[in-house]
Amino acid sequence: MRERSTASSALLTDRYELTMLQATLRDGTAHRSCVFELFARRLSGGRRYGVIAGVGRLLDALETFRFGEAELAWLREAKVVDEDTITWLANYRFSGSIWGYPEGEIYFPYSPVLIVEGTFAECVILETVFLSILNHDSAIASAAARMVSAAGDRPCIEMGSRRTHEQSAISAARAAYVSGFAATSNLEAGRTYGIPTTGTSAHSFTLLHDTERDAFKAQVRALGNGTTLLVDTYDIPEGVALAVDVAGPELGGVRLDSGDLVSLAKSVRKQLDELGATSTRITVTSDLDEHAIAALASAPVDGYGVGTALVTGSGVPTSSFVYKLVARVGNDGEMVSVAKASKDKTSVGGRKYALRRQTKAGVAKTEVIGIGGEPEGPGRLLLVELVRGGKRIHHESLEAARERLKLALDELPPAAKQLSRGEPVIDTAFEDLS
Amino acid sequence: MRERSTASSALLTDRYELTMLQATLRDGTAHRSCVFELFARRLSGGRRYGVIAGVGRLLDALETFRFGEAELAWLREAKVVDEDTITWLANYRFSGSIWGYPEGEIYFPYSPVLIVEGTFAECVILETVFLSILNHDSAIASAAARMVSAAGDRPCIEMGSRRTHEQSAISAARAAYVSGFAATSNLEAGRTYGIPTTGTSAHSFTLLHDTERDAFKAQVRALGNGTTLLVDTYDIPEGVALAVDVAGPELGGVRLDSGDLVSLAKSVRKQLDELGATSTRITVTSDLDEHAIAALASAPVDGYGVGTALVTGSGVPTSSFVYKLVARVGNDGEMVSVAKASKDKTSVGGRKYALRRQTKAGVAKTEVIGIGGEPEGPGRLLLVELVRGGKRIHHESLEAARERLKLALDELPPAAKQLSRGEPVIDTAFEDLS
Repeated sequence: MRERSTASSALLTDRYELTMLQATLRDGTAHRSCVFELFARRLSGGRRYGVIAGVGRLLDALETFRFGEAELAWLREAKVVDEDTITWLANYRFSGSIWGYPEGEIYFPYSPVLIVEGTFAECVILETVFLSILNHDSAIASAAARMVSAAGDRPCIEMGSRRTHEQSAISAARAAYVSGFAATSNLEAGRTYGIPTTGTSAHSFTLLHDTERDAFKAQVRALGNGTTLLVDTYDIPEGVALAVDVAGPELGGVRLDSGDLVSLAKSVRKQLDELGATSTRITVTSDLDEHAIAALASAPVDGYGVGTALVTGSGVPTSSFVYKLVARVGNDGEMVSVAKASKDKTSVGGRKYALRRQTKAGVAKTEVIGIGGEPEGPGRLLLVELVRGGKRIHHESLEAARERLKLALDELPPAAKQLSRGEPVIDTAFEDLS
Repeated sequence: MRERSTASSALLTDRYELTMLQATLRDGTAHRSCVFELFARRLSGGRRYGVIAGVGRLLDALETFRFGEAELAWLREAKVVDEDTITWLANYRFSGSIWGYPEGEIYFPYSPVLIVEGTFAECVILETVFLSILNHDSAIASAAARMVSAAGDRPCIEMGSRRTHEQSAISAARAAYVSGFAATSNLEAGRTYGIPTTGTSAHSFTLLHDTERDAFKAQVRALGNGTTLLVDTYDIPEGVALAVDVAGPELGGVRLDSGDLVSLAKSVRKQLDELGATSTRITVTSDLDEHAIAALASAPVDGYGVGTALVTGSGVPTSSFVYKLVARVGNDGEMVSVAKASKDKTSVGGRKYALRRQTKAGVAKTEVIGIGGEPEGPGRLLLVELVRGGKRIHHESLEAARERLKLALDELPPAAKQLSRGEPVIDTAFEDLS
């Protein structure tokens, strides 16, 4: 395995982008002004809305999109492109502008989630890395938002790292946090993004000890009686009794990781209350998704640990974002809208603007996509300026993104919260304003 | 965002592993000899077999699993664990042994895919990173193997980077290559793992130009007439005629990315032949999975480009591997088998060995899991030594893993190739040999 300069994001790129670059550098079209648009034709999985996440990571990746000596040497050695192209790449700095939906914003089919303007050359080579980041992070955030919504006031904890690629795990924790998850089990996500980390203990910890009592005593001694004890390694009622016996009625919490969680939560709550542990919290885990969380609404549960379903997007592991050329300068120096003609993969040409039109009561009604001009209110304009003249001008905390999503969700019609498969909760409409 | 030392894999870890470590360091059980096992209780998605990938990456991650100054400082600052634990982590080097199924090997329910032996402390903290890597990479490899099998002699090209996390993309290309994919679009996978890279061009390239002819001319001039032209931006028959007109009958290939691919491939083949371009290859893309590939078997297609379905595991985005304590030393110094008692998450205690038992004709018949001893032939023993006394002793090329998978597949009963949902193609049987 060759050492990889992780400081550069430049080779997170499909080969055809660089060979197209070479062809256009030769015939001069590389320098034509272009508008690329990133959007989804549909919300996969019958979702009612999608949530944007990954914008901050995308802007980070843009800043490290540099072809250094190591990258150029490999491109030469692997004969990916010719010397003229390598020279051009060596000096590459994106000098265009980017507008987009900010992190935590909601999107619908054909929302112009990202508008990238610059020469063909400087825009086309960003396709793969931009799509990778937004397709992944938004898929996780969209699933996470449904879980948070189903959980109501109870906290959701992200604990899916072990079920996904070790680097996706960090980004998944980040996306879940944007969508309102309270914490993550992933330490690197804690370090990198400042997300609160939390955890309980594993069955291996109990099995390591000669008795369950030894295990509970060790955990309480090390972590205090505010800790959460895992009570289902052997017999749950015995585990609960033992937990309270060891930690006292001030025991912080118990975790249930198997069985029929609704009935178990009820009996465990009853038992805890009878033992005087009335403030001991019950956390449930074990293959939860938004539907299982909704089914637990009536059970006396205090928190949900979500793993597999979160990191795999709960049935929709990737968003359907594509990155398409929608306008470019022609021979005559005029900007023209362009779009592919094939029937099953439509796109709409032209530079887009977006407004979430609202009723008088402030309820979102229509996602209005203006072609060539800004649609007018009542409502909210959705695009924010991210990069101007190659310079990143958008920096935002994850807290701000969390807050944005809360407000954007409050604005949607109540049907947005339905977990069943269906149509987007508001329609998309195009307005030709060119 | 805080800078992250990507040289260390140590924080790709769930918080509870370190708090369990703290608790066991205090009561001394941290130093008990243990056996952990990584296995799957089932093959998700009704698959007939699973494919192991990621072993090389797992061993790389073990080598960089070091708590450096930056990691320790953060653990202290975030108050994850106490000073004694931090001191222990500062000196952490895995000193145990690891046996496992090598990369490209096939696995079934309860196959002991990885056996990790050492003290509780040194084994438990590897749980998350080991699971992340094998759960992700094996899910991709398992899906990829079905696609390669459905494609027969025709090459499959991995082009799904844009549909998954930018770092998963690199690992997905690697896993697909293990399972017999011919190439990837991902340049970083080319650089990091030496996987052949390839590509065609995008619709944006055609749309950038004033005419489709200009676009084809530019591509052929830059890349030669062995290149692959994308012919479905406007009208396919016109695109094909133009492609051959521009490149000559020696044109390398055309790509179809939309429409009914079976009928389109037939008409395009006919048209190419009539134009004398009898050796021009037809590559199809557009939401292919193993079922679509199988449906194209009778069509005159020369290669498949696979994106979304590959990187999302074609409906199974994660394997179901878990990492469980199966044996440990007790108070009396004796090694004892341990297993969780709960009904729905069974595991089997004891150190395991594995043999793929064969018929006289050499056809795989049973996955035999020996508990406490090595099962005997006829057949193949499956575990290889990966790490001895903390030292990695297993290094293998991806080519060797590809070769192993071919042989392992040839050994299975023909029903293994069925794409429909069903049972594992051979049964798993336990033999108590302790």
